[in-house]
Amino acid sequence: MYELGVVYRNIQRTDAATADALAAFGSATVHEAMGRVGLMKPYMRPIYAGAQVSGTAVTVLLHPGDNWMMHVVAEQIRPGDIVVAAITAECTDGYFGDLLATSFQARGARALVIDAGCRDVKTLTEMKFPVWSKAISSKGTIKATLGSVNIPVVCAGAYVTPGDVIVADDDGVVCVPRALAAKTLEAAAAREANEGAKRAKLASGVLGLDMYAMREPLAKAGLRYVD
Amino acid sequence: MYELGVVYRNIQRTDAATADALAAFGSATVHEAMGRVGLMKPYMRPIYAGAQVSGTAVTVLLHPGDNWMMHVVAEQIRPGDIVVAAITAECTDGYFGDLLATSFQARGARALVIDAGCRDVKTLTEMKFPVWSKAISSKGTIKATLGSVNIPVVCAGAYVTPGDVIVADDDGVVCVPRALAAKTLEAAAAREANEGAKRAKLASGVLGLDMYAMREPLAKAGLRYVD
Amino acid sequence: MYELGVVYRNIQRTDAATADALAAFGSATVHEAMGRVGLMKPYMRPIYAGAQVSGTAVTVLLHPGDNWMMHVVAEQIRPGDIVVAAITAECTDGYFGDLLATSFQARGARALVIDAGCRDVKTLTEMKFPVWSKAISSKGTIKATLGSVNIPVVCAGAYVTPGDVIVADDDGVVCVPRALAAKTLEAAAAREANEGAKRAKLASGVLGLDMYAMREPLAKAGLRYVD
Amino acid sequence: MYELGVVYRNIQRTDAATADALAAFGSATVHEAMGRVGLMKPYMRPIYAGAQVSGTAVTVLLHPGDNWMMHVVAEQIRPGDIVVAAITAECTDGYFGDLLATSFQARGARALVIDAGCRDVKTLTEMKFPVWSKAISSKGTIKATLGSVNIPVVCAGAYVTPGDVIVADDDGVVCVPRALAAKTLEAAAAREANEGAKRAKLASGVLGLDMYAMREPLAKAGLRYVD
Amino acid sequence: MYELGVVYRNIQRTDAATADALAAFGSATVHEAMGRVGLMKPYMRPIYAGAQVSGTAVTVLLHPGDNWMMHVVAEQIRPGDIVVAAITAECTDGYFGDLLATSFQARGARALVIDAGCRDVKTLTEMKFPVWSKAISSKGTIKATLGSVNIPVVCAGAYVTPGDVIVADDDGVVCVPRALAAKTLEAAAAREANEGAKRAKLASGVLGLDMYAMREPLAKAGLRYVD
Amino acid sequence: MYELGVVYRNIQRTDAATADALAAFGSATVHEAMGRVGLMKPYMRPIYAGAQVSGTAVTVLLHPGDNWMMHVVAEQIRPGDIVVAAITAECTDGYFGDLLATSFQARGARALVIDAGCRDVKTLTEMKFPVWSKAISSKGTIKATLGSVNIPVVCAGAYVTPGDVIVADDDGVVCVPRALAAKTLEAAAAREANEGAKRAKLASGVLGLDMYAMREPLAKAGLRYVD
Repeated sequence: MYELGVVYRNIQRTDAATADALAAFGSATVHEAMGRVGLMKPYMRPIYAGAQVSGTAVTVLLHPGDNWMMHVVAEQIRPGDIVVAAITAECTDGYFGDLLATSFQARGARALVIDAGCRDVKTLTEMKFPVWSKAISSKGTIKATLGSVNIPVVCAGAYVTPGDVIVADDDGVVCVPRALAAKTLEAAAAREANEGAKRAKLASGVLGLDMYAMREPLAKAGLRYVD
Repeated sequence: MYELGVVYRNIQRTDAATADALAAFGSATVHEAMGRVGLMKPYMRPIYAGAQVSGTAVTVLLHPGDNWMMHVVAEQIRPGDIVVAAITAECTDGYFGDLLATSFQARGARALVIDAGCRDVKTLTEMKFPVWSKAISSKGTIKATLGSVNIPVVCAGAYVTPGDVIVADDDGVVCVPRALAAKTLEAAAAREANEGAKRAKLASGVLGLDMYAMREPLAKAGLRYVD
Repeated sequence: MYELGVVYRNIQRTDAATADALAAFGSATVHEAMGRVGLMKPYMRPIYAGAQVSGTAVTVLLHPGDNWMMHVVAEQIRPGDIVVAAITAECTDGYFGDLLATSFQARGARALVIDAGCRDVKTLTEMKFPVWSKAISSKGTIKATLGSVNIPVVCAGAYVTPGDVIVADDDGVVCVPRALAAKTLEAAAAREANEGAKRAKLASGVLGLDMYAMREPLAKAGLRYVD
Repeated sequence: MYELGVVYRNIQRTDAATADALAAFGSATVHEAMGRVGLMKPYMRPIYAGAQVSGTAVTVLLHPGDNWMMHVVAEQIRPGDIVVAAITAECTDGYFGDLLATSFQARGARALVIDAGCRDVKTLTEMKFPVWSKAISSKGTIKATLGSVNIPVVCAGAYVTPGDVIVADDDGVVCVPRALAAKTLEAAAAREANEGAKRAKLASGVLGLDMYAMREPLAKAGLRYVD
Repeated sequence: MYELGVVYRNIQRTDAATADALAAFGSATVHEAMGRVGLMKPYMRPIYAGAQVSGTAVTVLLHPGDNWMMHVVAEQIRPGDIVVAAITAECTDGYFGDLLATSFQARGARALVIDAGCRDVKTLTEMKFPVWSKAISSKGTIKATLGSVNIPVVCAGAYVTPGDVIVADDDGVVCVPRALAAKTLEAAAAREANEGAKRAKLASGVLGLDMYAMREPLAKAGLRYVD
Repeated sequence: MYELGVVYRNIQRTDAATADALAAFGSATVHEAMGRVGLMKPYMRPIYAGAQVSGTAVTVLLHPGDNWMMHVVAEQIRPGDIVVAAITAECTDGYFGDLLATSFQARGARALVIDAGCRDVKTLTEMKFPVWSKAISSKGTIKATLGSVNIPVVCAGAYVTPGDVIVADDDGVVCVPRALAAKTLEAAAAREANEGAKRAKLASGVLGLDMYAMREPLAKAGLRYVD
């Protein structure tokens, strides 16, 4: 499925306004707005709590234990991008540390999402450069084999095409395809619109059973109460 | 083993004074006080550090990817309860987020313990509603299938009967059966009573070898020292 | 491979100046300085973020569910040591809590590295006694079986000889053999020496591609750019 | 939850006819007949393919790395029993080998179900003594600590009361509570009754879509076909 | 990324001659022939040893614990197809058993590849219907929620477009994109062509070091021999 | 800990008579004979059931995704050796297939033990070349980086020095240090000597409780029987 040894320089990014606006809704709401699909595996965790970002994906495919292409992808970053790194096999090595983060940040990247390991997490935290990864590991990598940049990749179970929107926060990472980004933004906003009212009701003690009119369908499904 | 589609409204809760008093001892001491049993698996982790609670268990059994019964259990919560959620199969989906937490908190719940995933963890942290879970995941759930409320469940390897006491902190989650709660509280208090004196001795440089008189049994067991 | 029931009292520790100096470089740099070897598995995680230590290893071999030898090793600790605990089989029990930490700290230990579980993590965090472990668990242990102290052990995949240097931080744990410690310190210092200059260049927007002169080898390897 | 140091000699076993009859239906059908509950975790695997058994549970609770109680439970076995072994913490040690299997088989046990490790699997296979376990491991155990026999236990996520029926085959292990055994047997037989007819239809090319009349509900749910 | 509730009836299958011919080379050779990409994760294991197949992919996307769409995909199977089933979240439930296998086999399917669980493995083995799955589990599923048929899916880390070729054997599962199938077949045949000669040489005691002329590059890389 | 880029040609192998004789006792008995130490992690599994071997270790250290040194180690194999392969980081790639197995077998190797993946398992099974590995994977490797041959390595948690004895069977893999091999052989033989008598007793219905005189120590430990 993967084309190796190639760098696509021109990718169609989701328009910045849409890509930027999705961050505010968070990964859970965006994932619901897409119909409960598009999520990376829950083993992808942020290296520090509290970061919440969205941006356009530039992708990189790497081999196990080899981070050569990280330097290649750096050149393709534009402000507002999030780098999505996939590996051709299971690997927990630390592909990314503070020097690469300095470079990525200088190019305007907002975050890295990598289906492998990351290191220098203390410095990355101080730099406020968020990373979502599968592992944290001091294990360094070599620079010997070509992968590719800006081809579609599978990262932590999600299919990511360059230019898609990535939304990441403490709950996980979602990929929104470019073609669905505007519609997803609308749907997310619609979901959020009445959350305040719902929250106030629930906070006042109203039950979801009543607020969502669930008592009848539950009874129909056969729910019995025993005193 | 499980009865499906039923909600038990009247359960015998451990008396509040006992249930409340156990929090102060923490899960490790309570687990020791029970004879080193009753612990949930160590994969159950708090969504934020520092919470330490105890309370009476109300239980809910759910199906994979379906959180319908979460709304049913909300109605059965009384102040001082901790909701214990078991799933009929392995699942990491995010069954619980900020809206349900608002409802649970309004009903007086102190925490959720769930053998599956949780989401909106940033908001839950701000709300100070602690959750012990197996995963964090943006993945939402449907509302289609009946489970049960307030039946005995197996949660993360521990058998929990409604009304038992749950003690949870950064070290993990313990279930104290109602019938053993008073005795366990006494035993925990007894353990703790002389911990201060022990700590002072150890801090002054006295060795556990001497404080616990271990040199003789170690020598009997055959321990050799080589210079 | 293991000799059981023996305590070696005299071990050759790496000289203190070298052992102490390695902390500043962190596990990732030290691991690189050794040629990308010597690392413990990435499942070893600190119980709290931010600790960064180095020290001389005293080792202890324990049996599953049995922490008796923890009291024996305490006596062998000298100021500047880090205790490295290996288990003869997979185990996640909580071998170590606040009382043992008080004793270890009183003896001058800087940290514990254990291929099993740890408990009382809230108190350990307050005490600033860092632990790198495989699990956090309230599960207590018994005191029934002899292991050994200060024999070579395998801990989380790394071979540790008493007196070696342990370097641990948020990225993981590295073991530097005594014979390589001085050379590794030099190599680490050399690596770090020009990192500041590199970081400044990268921060200014210079690409690693140019700074490391990678364009030519990448082209030779066949990398193609597509517009 | 667990009572330690006790052996219950008199347990109420499910009647033999019912317990024996359930084997023929296999774990999947029995699990469906109970309403899709009662299953042990899928990490429980047979040590060899092809065994399919049912029998009445005698239970044993063990500590990590300690198989002393295996000898105690042996005495409580009656012909037609299946031993269910739970551990108080995660452990993969080999608690059970060919000598114990010889003893269990001599007492009339049909199988062992253990939430830990097993060894001598080549000999056990030759003896045709099936074991469902979490691991295979040469690691031996000690005999130092009391557990219990014939108390209710949680084994691989399932709650097992002594005298319940265990059904185990290549698909996994199910526990049928004694009180539900007769009803479950009926339900399983009913499910199986028309499976032959269904299989014949499907083998002839009839689709489940038609045989189960699913086309209408699928259309109602919104399924669209695109040519 | 996923479109839900839709069935694509017309897909472009790789031509049968190419799809069929790939089986003989096996997953390892095919994976090499593609440049070491396209492999599913190694947790995908066959339910019995020895099956080696290739065929054109028809895909199905399912929700956790829900196998409704399995009946929908059955109708889209043509002789020579292999069904590839992806799930929107982690799940080990047994989605597929002997009745569905009977139907799939009647429609001409050669195998199922599913990123979840399978059951009735004893019967499937007797039927010689091979399945590659992540788990074996008796746990049944419901029929409540729409997924899709013949959309591109991510299965066990591989991106599969309907009509691609699936090659599966004891070593794992590879997906060959339709556009690359002919070229991959050629490359696989070329690799295999001189394997017989190589094997004979190696069997006669010739070393790979000499056969592949590795001594010089190894020496250049710095390899030292110590007597 | 590891020296890179070096091949030790002269290693001190355990004498062949001892190394060969250990196979008959199997990994469980040998592990007991050593005092329950020396075992590799239970995730090491044979690629086919029934192989039972022992032999002298030649070791190789490899990098993730790189099997270059496999060709280097082949030359160092002598009849009666078992190759033990360790990796500098977690990796499941298929480092070893039928061509290398042909070469290893031609050199007289009895088996491979590898803390990574293996492929061509069908052919290896037909060749009767047993492999104990962590994974089975079609994923191929490159030849780019130097490791070492015949240095001490950590493989699956066990420390292996070249020339030690490896004993492997369906229960797992044990490493017996050269210095302990003769003593271990004696101890294993002694253990086995009276196993036949024990087995006969147990088969006749005598209980371990009586044969091992456990009733008194159990009573002393406090075991209670309840009717």
